Amino acid sequence: MNKATSGIALASALAPLTRVVPLYPPWGAEEDGYDLWLRYRLLPEPARSRLGDGARSIAVAPDASLTTLAAVAELHRAIAGRTGVPPALVQEPAEGALVLATPASHPEITALEPALAGLGREGYALRTATVGGKRVTVIAANTDVGVLYGAFAWIRAVGTGRDVSTLAEHSAPRVGLRMMNHWDNLDRTIERGYAGESIWDWWKLPGMKDARYADYARATASIGINAVSLNNVNAKAEMLTPPWIAKAAAVADILRPYGIRVFLAVRFSTPVELGDVDTADPLDPRVAAWWKDRAAAIYRSIPDLLGFIIKANSEGQPGPHDYGRDHAQGANMLAAALAPHGGLVMWRAFVYSQHDPEDRAKQAYADFKPLDGKFLPNVIVQVKNGPIDFQPREPFHPMLGAMPATPLALEVQITKEYLGFATHLAYLGDMYEEVLRADTHAKGPGSTVAKVVDGTLHGAKLTAMAAVSNVGSSRTWCGSHFDQANWYVYGRLAWDPYASARDIAEEWARQTFSHDAKVVDAIVGMMMRSREAVVRYMMPLGLHHLFDTGHHHGPGPWVDDLDRPEWNPTYYHRGDKDGIGFDRGPRGSNAVAQYAPALAEVYSDPRRTPANLLLWFHHLPWTHAMPSGRTLWEELVAAYDLGVADAAELQASWTRLAGAIDARRHAEVAMLLAVQLEEARWWRDACIAYFRSINGLPMPAGHAPPPLGLDEYKARRSHYAPGRGITLPR
Amino acid sequence: MNKATSGIALASALAPLTRVVPLYPPWGAEEDGYDLWLRYRLLPEPARSRLGDGARSIAVAPDASLTTLAAVAELHRAIAGRTGVPPALVQEPAEGALVLATPASHPEITALEPALAGLGREGYALRTATVGGKRVTVIAANTDVGVLYGAFAWIRAVGTGRDVSTLAEHSAPRVGLRMMNHWDNLDRTIERGYAGESIWDWWKLPGMKDARYADYARATASIGINAVSLNNVNAKAEMLTPPWIAKAAAVADILRPYGIRVFLAVRFSTPVELGDVDTADPLDPRVAAWWKDRAAAIYRSIPDLLGFIIKANSEGQPGPHDYGRDHAQGANMLAAALAPHGGLVMWRAFVYSQHDPEDRAKQAYADFKPLDGKFLPNVIVQVKNGPIDFQPREPFHPMLGAMPATPLALEVQITKEYLGFATHLAYLGDMYEEVLRADTHAKGPGSTVAKVVDGTLHGAKLTAMAAVSNVGSSRTWCGSHFDQANWYVYGRLAWDPYASARDIAEEWARQTFSHDAKVVDAIVGMMMRSREAVVRYMMPLGLHHLFDTGHHHGPGPWVDDLDRPEWNPTYYHRGDKDGIGFDRGPRGSNAVAQYAPALAEVYSDPRRTPANLLLWFHHLPWTHAMPSGRTLWEELVAAYDLGVADAAELQASWTRLAGAIDARRHAEVAMLLAVQLEEARWWRDACIAYFRSINGLPMPAGHAPPPLGLDEYKARRSHYAPGRGITLPR
Repeated sequence: MNKATSGIALASALAPLTRVVPLYPPWGAEEDGYDLWLRYRLLPEPARSRLGDGARSIAVAPDASLTTLAAVAELHRAIAGRTGVPPALVQEPAEGALVLATPASHPEITALEPALAGLGREGYALRTATVGGKRVTVIAANTDVGVLYGAFAWIRAVGTGRDVSTLAEHSAPRVGLRMMNHWDNLDRTIERGYAGESIWDWWKLPGMKDARYADYARATASIGINAVSLNNVNAKAEMLTPPWIAKAAAVADILRPYGIRVFLAVRFSTPVELGDVDTADPLDPRVAAWWKDRAAAIYRSIPDLLGFIIKANSEGQPGPHDYGRDHAQGANMLAAALAPHGGLVMWRAFVYSQHDPEDRAKQAYADFKPLDGKFLPNVIVQVKNGPIDFQPREPFHPMLGAMPATPLALEVQITKEYLGFATHLAYLGDMYEEVLRADTHAKGPGSTVAKVVDGTLHGAKLTAMAAVSNVGSSRTWCGSHFDQANWYVYGRLAWDPYASARDIAEEWARQTFSHDAKVVDAIVGMMMRSREAVVRYMMPLGLHHLFDTGHHHGPGPWVDDLDRPEWNPTYYHRGDKDGIGFDRGPRGSNAVAQYAPALAEVYSDPRRTPANLLLWFHHLPWTHAMPSGRTLWEELVAAYDLGVADAAELQASWTRLAGAIDARRHAEVAMLLAVQLEEARWWRDACIAYFRSINGLPMPAGHAPPPLGLDEYKARRSHYAPGRGITLPR
Repeated sequence: MNKATSGIALASALAPLTRVVPLYPPWGAEEDGYDLWLRYRLLPEPARSRLGDGARSIAVAPDASLTTLAAVAELHRAIAGRTGVPPALVQEPAEGALVLATPASHPEITALEPALAGLGREGYALRTATVGGKRVTVIAANTDVGVLYGAFAWIRAVGTGRDVSTLAEHSAPRVGLRMMNHWDNLDRTIERGYAGESIWDWWKLPGMKDARYADYARATASIGINAVSLNNVNAKAEMLTPPWIAKAAAVADILRPYGIRVFLAVRFSTPVELGDVDTADPLDPRVAAWWKDRAAAIYRSIPDLLGFIIKANSEGQPGPHDYGRDHAQGANMLAAALAPHGGLVMWRAFVYSQHDPEDRAKQAYADFKPLDGKFLPNVIVQVKNGPIDFQPREPFHPMLGAMPATPLALEVQITKEYLGFATHLAYLGDMYEEVLRADTHAKGPGSTVAKVVDGTLHGAKLTAMAAVSNVGSSRTWCGSHFDQANWYVYGRLAWDPYASARDIAEEWARQTFSHDAKVVDAIVGMMMRSREAVVRYMMPLGLHHLFDTGHHHGPGPWVDDLDRPEWNPTYYHRGDKDGIGFDRGPRGSNAVAQYAPALAEVYSDPRRTPANLLLWFHHLPWTHAMPSGRTLWEELVAAYDLGVADAAELQASWTRLAGAIDARRHAEVAMLLAVQLEEARWWRDACIAYFRSINGLPMPAGHAPPPLGLDEYKARRSHYAPGRGITLPR
């Protein structure tokens, strides 16, 4: 300690402190994750000057729309950050300008950019060109929102380290509605949210407009999301009262310039609960009139409302069944109220009855398949990726591909309700890709879920993908740095369901962490094996829903004492001294029959069923011979151990990146990976201890027995788990 | 829009966007309030160079403690920020050095700084001096924590714009324990918290140590707070189980280097609820043994735990009365368990029974006064500032000064449960000062509450001041920019209860907003009239507890249908066609008799009672003649109108500061002031409409009648209000 001290010398002097106190670095600026993938950090030379040469100014026509101005603001922020030199704003293209152009603002653009005609309302083209002797980059689109997406695409190109001095590319979304579904309650808790409170500070709205809403809009638009449902599908009647509509309208006003429109989640019994009608029967004209009036009132405040999303007759929510009506009758009544305003109904197919003894996995299909073709044209039925509920692995939902006359939205979860909350690293791109590439065989081989989602399989006009949000008030938005990738990959896959999850992981990592290829490779490698790691240490071989009671975090395969059969993990694994697994074949629940015949045949045969879904479809003896030569029991234990080894390897990979990642984010991720490894072991040990207690088998050679007795795993409690989304009494 | 665009030109071009979307500024760095009063922004020249000359390096002895390193880190951050030049770290004093010195590290310091001997463990001295021919600034103290406080004092001097080239000053705290009481639940909700979730992310602790904890420690230490109780006094038994102790220990580890030690809030019935003993009777030896063992276990994890804080036999909490024992017997049992470890019991005097028909204002005194002298020496009784519950105005609590043989802590609220949550601007320095300067007359005139708090009135050895925290996970920490001032002034007054709230407001404003005298004057002016404004538009003339049901936000003076009398506003105002107010004089509840005779005499006489407490102590006819010449009714209406005018003037004052305050903070405060004005009118109108409905009197001349009918005010609902601190089922 002498003479001028560099940051490193200071860090070294303060090391004893910083080993105890999380100060990264202790003297100031740090990466806290708030900037997401929109991290506009200064580029090193020569990249900085090279970029600056091509981004000296932003040329934009006068009287630009708010959306165009949003593009200008974002480009300005990105260029100033990346080059250190704020670009000028100009009206006419100058040398080195970024030119924002639509056919309306620049009629000549249609000649320069022939692709434009095919790009629709939201597509964009990026092209470097010489215009009037000046070298410029044109961001061209048919509308201002296309320009905004183009601006973000240019920023992404810079952020991933591409050379933007020569560009000639275009893109348009393959899916019409690319939605975020917030499960945010009116008391600001979030159901299944693990990143703090709701971003929507309802109490202070509409008076107080948090600056964070704008940053949310920027992030959301940057990945092409154009629809947001603001409140939990377990909805409250108050949402449709004037004070709450005013709050929602204030949010809608902020999202609108970013090309984002809002849905409201509604409660089917709202007219009754607000005391206006004594029934919510969808065929009662007073009910229809009530919804029509209320919709008209809402559209006066939010003229571009996308519509309503609704969870009806599921998990205790009211719905048309309460009046002996079916889902189509319920949905169509709402759809008729919204149609005059161009509004849509997103009707969720996640329904199962607490009073239906049928295999839970079969109930949605059974309810909805007969209704195919009976929905009004402005209804979309929203189907979860799998038939149960966002498990670490499920087969694709049998409704996908099975409703040719009904627009279907694919619903996935970004928030990791069943994959370790915001604590475990699990890149969901792998899961989304798995379902999108799954072949439904609905119209023969190649009938992928992606083709259902983009409408090409059955010619659907309305197309949509929806995701349950993981965004909260956490500084990282998502509860951890790596969970940001799940938001990112969802948006990018909703734009193009045929894109590669690995490519997107790399894109994200380059923008979020580093352009260093070694770092990027290491991070992408971690991401790509992370979800499978979770599957292995929680529920390998097609096991599912083995969670302890009251939350969906720790293991509870032994739980068998809850009131309803399907609330118990034992319902799902059906293990006993002889074997394990849920027989969904023809001699079991015959859920396989809900799939196309070619698939049903595969899933009916344990030898042909993919190993990773084996126990989803089959109940097999512990001695069942696996292709590996091991017994099922040996394979199961090996899978658990592999999962723990994967978690250890995630941690080791990250440790090797010390110094290559900024200190704070490296430390924060490292802390979570340590928790993940500990909890991976907990899952492995608790599950193996339980399975041994029912099958009485010895540990396979080479695998250590769980260190504790089963009772000790059973006694472990996870009190006060986040994400259970209570709603305060009014 | 041509040529290079300055930030202002960009702002102008983007104005249409930024009028809708909260982007301040749209291109980057902004003040979001996270830095609190520790805003180390670059000084303008010549102040920058002048400061740099005297802060070229930080001289610190080798083998510095973590606390000394915390001081080094903070000084480094401040100097680098203020001057743009990071100071060197050196071991020997150099020209222009800040020298951190204790008698242990620099024996010569006792001669240089004679004041040191009298400064105790936490005091500090700042002195510029020439040492060995070198001009230095010495930060001297008897211990490392004194050095830390000295470092923050030097930073504060810089932050308030003082010339630090000549310093000769010293300070020591007058109060031993300066506490923050978090009412943070284990599910991360906060009871009466209006700034988001708990800062403690219990779920991720102890594995994940949020960097925010360190910033909390910095802020807390910077204002001299040295004790933090981590969890809600409506406590849960789990808090004392090993997993939760581990979480608390992780927080304690981070706070410790900053001179901050922790308390845990405990539930009296914990041994029963954990299933270990079948009673919590404090005289049962098994109970005493349980607490002794548990305390020993906790001290193994948190060796410097300050002790337990407890709410017993109040609002449904268990306590010694459940077993026929008194508060002293309960407290002493816990105190005996903690004594071997040097731990303390903070026993809250906020007790009132739901089954006691006595005036609620009298119950705590009645319970505790007979116990004076019966508590073990390591018990402190914690008394709220007023006898009811943190109302906008109350007289001081009659226990203050009335327990000469018992150490009393003064408990105030920083979170504004009854003063507009985080939405209304109300500077509480005014309220804290009012109570600290109140004269109890306990030992004749001049027996101020401040002398109770600092122990000088009755020679108390243990001295303490406690405040219910307003800190949450909000980016501003406190839910709004101005609420930060209430945290600040609390800490500064706990250090010196004789300090001036106005001086502290100025100190805060200069560090938080600007050194510009005109700006500072305007802000201090706003702050100093803000709390009285809230009193006037909510509950003038000594009215209290007129809040609507279920939360403590909007007006509900009409509420009279709740089960218990003291849950109803009508219990407190007792208004009818003839008059209004609570008679607490000799012919009423005689609460006045709990005060010293000289005061009891004043409070018994409506002509001598201060007007601002009139209806607290007296029930008077609406025609009662006020000193102003107006009737009581006219005076009441005038007060409400004055309150609304005050709120309008707050808004106008702030509007005049546009351009002098950074854009984001100016806009955010402006939005809240607009809400405050609207809600001030609501309070005024609703209360006047109600009072007219019972007294049938016309509006006094010159005062507008409420624009709506009483039923419309009654119908207004504030659903899903924050701060009700539910706790999830386990």
